[in-house]
Amino acid sequence: MMIIHNIGLLTGIQPQGKLRTEGIEQGFTESMENAWLRIEDGRIAGFGPMSTCPSLFGEEAIDALGGMLMPGFCDSHTHVVYAGSRDGEFLDKIKGLSYEEIAARGGGILNSADLLHRTSEEELYRESLPRVEEMLAKGTVALEIKSGYGLNPEDELKMLRVIRRIGQTVPATVKSTFLGAHAVGRGYTHEEYVQAVIRMLPEAARLADFVDVFCDEGFFTVEDTARILEASRGLLTPKIHANELAVSGGVQVGVRFGALSVDHLERTTEAEIEALRGSATMPTMLPGSSFFLGLPYGKAREFLRAGLGVALASDYNPGSSPSGDMRFVMALGCIRMRLTPVEAFNAVTLNSAYAMGLSEEYGSVTVGKRAALILTHPGWDLTKIAYQYQTPFIRQVFL
Amino acid sequence: MMIIHNIGLLTGIQPQGKLRTEGIEQGFTESMENAWLRIEDGRIAGFGPMSTCPSLFGEEAIDALGGMLMPGFCDSHTHVVYAGSRDGEFLDKIKGLSYEEIAARGGGILNSADLLHRTSEEELYRESLPRVEEMLAKGTVALEIKSGYGLNPEDELKMLRVIRRIGQTVPATVKSTFLGAHAVGRGYTHEEYVQAVIRMLPEAARLADFVDVFCDEGFFTVEDTARILEASRGLLTPKIHANELAVSGGVQVGVRFGALSVDHLERTTEAEIEALRGSATMPTMLPGSSFFLGLPYGKAREFLRAGLGVALASDYNPGSSPSGDMRFVMALGCIRMRLTPVEAFNAVTLNSAYAMGLSEEYGSVTVGKRAALILTHPGWDLTKIAYQYQTPFIRQVFL
Repeated sequence: MMIIHNIGLLTGIQPQGKLRTEGIEQGFTESMENAWLRIEDGRIAGFGPMSTCPSLFGEEAIDALGGMLMPGFCDSHTHVVYAGSRDGEFLDKIKGLSYEEIAARGGGILNSADLLHRTSEEELYRESLPRVEEMLAKGTVALEIKSGYGLNPEDELKMLRVIRRIGQTVPATVKSTFLGAHAVGRGYTHEEYVQAVIRMLPEAARLADFVDVFCDEGFFTVEDTARILEASRGLLTPKIHANELAVSGGVQVGVRFGALSVDHLERTTEAEIEALRGSATMPTMLPGSSFFLGLPYGKAREFLRAGLGVALASDYNPGSSPSGDMRFVMALGCIRMRLTPVEAFNAVTLNSAYAMGLSEEYGSVTVGKRAALILTHPGWDLTKIAYQYQTPFIRQVFL
Repeated sequence: MMIIHNIGLLTGIQPQGKLRTEGIEQGFTESMENAWLRIEDGRIAGFGPMSTCPSLFGEEAIDALGGMLMPGFCDSHTHVVYAGSRDGEFLDKIKGLSYEEIAARGGGILNSADLLHRTSEEELYRESLPRVEEMLAKGTVALEIKSGYGLNPEDELKMLRVIRRIGQTVPATVKSTFLGAHAVGRGYTHEEYVQAVIRMLPEAARLADFVDVFCDEGFFTVEDTARILEASRGLLTPKIHANELAVSGGVQVGVRFGALSVDHLERTTEAEIEALRGSATMPTMLPGSSFFLGLPYGKAREFLRAGLGVALASDYNPGSSPSGDMRFVMALGCIRMRLTPVEAFNAVTLNSAYAMGLSEEYGSVTVGKRAALILTHPGWDLTKIAYQYQTPFIRQVFL
């Protein structure tokens, strides 16, 4: 048992019994000044104003020195298990090479797959683990990691085993997504590969929590996606890559199959908002890849105005978002997407926890949830985290 | 005396005798693998390949463990001395308030001046120093700080004294710029204020190194600027704010008066490039404020293509760029302005040193220059610094 006292601002409080059960709306949390919080067995056991603080006598007590205590970040969309770097491709992009030229020189998803194929499972684990450890040091307490650089049965399962091993190693919760349908693997026709993905499903389901399909122009069609999700029923809950490159129909097919989230959404119309209304599917946007590639940002404000919720995630991957820094993701939500700091904070905690099926464990200060918390230096609040977007603010991460 | 050995990559080498003396072109530096570097009396006394490494016997020796050693960052344009925060204004901007509404609610330069007026010199020093110390921890070794939130003789001089005191406190070199002409001070007509700035010059010149004028639409005209710079002759070298809001003529008047740099340049035409050709004025761009405000980035590539050099600086200030993180500035140079990592690196070291009149002291690995250096963790190079733009890379800063 441990008590954190002298908390200047306890942020992200969600009273019990207010958990959403159906329909996605923007999560809401409250805050309290001058508070204490008790942790028992790694879970939040109580909190309240300092005037009600239990005796610290004989307890392990941490003086927050007036800092803010907030739920840790939840990152519901990453590809952080990969082999090698794609910094050469970064140079090629700066020099103005086309996607085709870059692919020919060793860039793109297929070349990541070639590199991963040549990398042993042990080496893949050793390369990927420090990236996840850096994310944890920066306040991420739960994350999702996708396969999708294997693109054949053997290498996809190798990735899923590495993801599982990382989850067993780090103190954060790691959710695993089978993204066999990230691109058509080498040596397959499009149709052969869709069939191969469907055949991989039962074995993938033993290792993964979710199934994902890159439903977008030039990748997989709505029909491909429907076939894969149909075959996934009872095995894996869907999370869908949709509308990054075009208005793809990916949102609608995701909602139809009860996807937990539809992700990217750089290109959306009123029809996507309508499809999401009343669904249990969380729209998830990835501002880090918009920033890194110079693409449009998702229209988060329009989603909120329509009464929907929005989650933000890092999309950490070597090609389009080489960072898993969720504080910067939150800051981009404010600076570039014009979310208020509270909206962006809810998007990187409560709503992204939902997008991983972790609403009951993470994402808010609620009695019974994991005590996965960030304690800031004194003087910080949510606005300052976004405004002073490069100034270190974390004093300690509780995991 | 100290020897740093086992340097994996010694970056930013500029051979002696190759210092530019006239005309601004992109600075150039070289690099060397597996190197050593000797420091004597705080200056670079020698360097070379490990095969020529002097005996470490009896010397203070630092094992670089294969990390990269590079010159520290030079930040030639900041407003880091200010009172209070403008995070409330940040919220107002997110909510879509106009510049006029924000000013009415307590934002903008004039309100920063009101706040600074109410802040004691001691308090202003205490508030500003930690910002500078954070910059140093992130690898900045020389910086410029402007006045310009005083806007009357008393408060402008208060700022200049605080800047001088910060320079006396920190181990970095601090250059000071008198920016009385940042905006028209309260209680003055435009013409009265221009005259007041001119009258402040002799006293400001005792504290400052440079004079700056915000020559842009709605602030000071080319004629105002010329009058102020005419009166500054023999007192202070100009550095000019130009072409942030409009094609202002600020570049041309800056070049005419021998400005060391013309800064901002978000809006430029072929005429500005022509004016700079053959001049000794360094075009300086401020990508942090473009990022934070969503303004266009300076067209650095066009300047380089025209054979000119480019410096990048942070513009650290509470309204438009609340960060002095020069690594992020370098990364923005690559990610958003399409500079190569070497070009962006030269822009934040050699060229920004030039823009502060510090070419002979900072900005490159050259025998005789200050040993103001960054040692990275193993495995880092310039590309990775920009590509993995949020991953910590500094092992130690030598100052």
